[in-house]
Amino acid sequence: MSQACPLCKGDGGLVVARTPSFRVVRVVDGEEARRFPAFYRLIWAAHVAEFSDLSAEDRNACMDAVVRIEQVLRSLLAPTKVNLATLGNVVPHLHWHVIARFDWDSHFPAPVWAAAQRDEVPGGAASRLALPLQAVDAAVAQALTC
Amino acid sequence: MSQACPLCKGDGGLVVARTPSFRVVRVVDGEEARRFPAFYRLIWAAHVAEFSDLSAEDRNACMDAVVRIEQVLRSLLAPTKVNLATLGNVVPHLHWHVIARFDWDSHFPAPVWAAAQRDEVPGGAASRLALPLQAVDAAVAQALTC
Repeated sequence: MSQACPLCKGDGGLVVARTPSFRVVRVVDGEEARRFPAFYRLIWAAHVAEFSDLSAEDRNACMDAVVRIEQVLRSLLAPTKVNLATLGNVVPHLHWHVIARFDWDSHFPAPVWAAAQRDEVPGGAASRLALPLQAVDAAVAQALTC
Repeated sequence: MSQACPLCKGDGGLVVARTPSFRVVRVVDGEEARRFPAFYRLIWAAHVAEFSDLSAEDRNACMDAVVRIEQVLRSLLAPTKVNLATLGNVVPHLHWHVIARFDWDSHFPAPVWAAAQRDEVPGGAASRLALPLQAVDAAVAQALTC
């Protein structure tokens, strides 16, 4: 726990699942959520900076959960690609980005952090998904807690 | 094996270690290598697109290797942060980026794929590292093959 860390103090998104070791949130605010609606983050509960700060057991559990999220996104949304990343340069509290990417999204095939390649989907990209995000949230929650 | 895949046809960098399951290369060409000299990639041998295409055993072996690279970078170079990512939007053949980031690099704290935050280190950022990249390569190779 770090008093100065926004991921220790706040949820960091809409919480869709929580275990003793981590929580999973969906990014719901701002440009990221509008452009990349199926954007989830696994946020480790303990305040550690690097993936290699975890024990081997915790690393395996962490990536098992990341993969379960990825599998839900692939199964329900059939994205062109799934992007996984843990950067943490701004907020050095271990969190994994799990992002469904589509060949029609504003940045594809560039990373979400790069320059846009085309105009945004009018009204928000969520309208292009195969089903509502609430249904994806529910499937992610079920995949992580069953 | 895909005839059209550049990571099936070529090495994708300077090979520093190779096992039956994967190879690890250092990025040696172009702007990325100049700006982010301690930039390694673990490239899975089989032509699969997504991390979740691997078996649980292979995923654990893959991330164990990624962590060994990260540990070498932390130990030898004391980076401000290590960035891990598998994107594959352009080349959908599973590869993990393992990048040592420094608060003085041209993009920090932004991702390496975002816009630069400051001028590059004159003469290349490798000159700012604590030791030559060949020594880092040797340590990565030893960590992955012993």
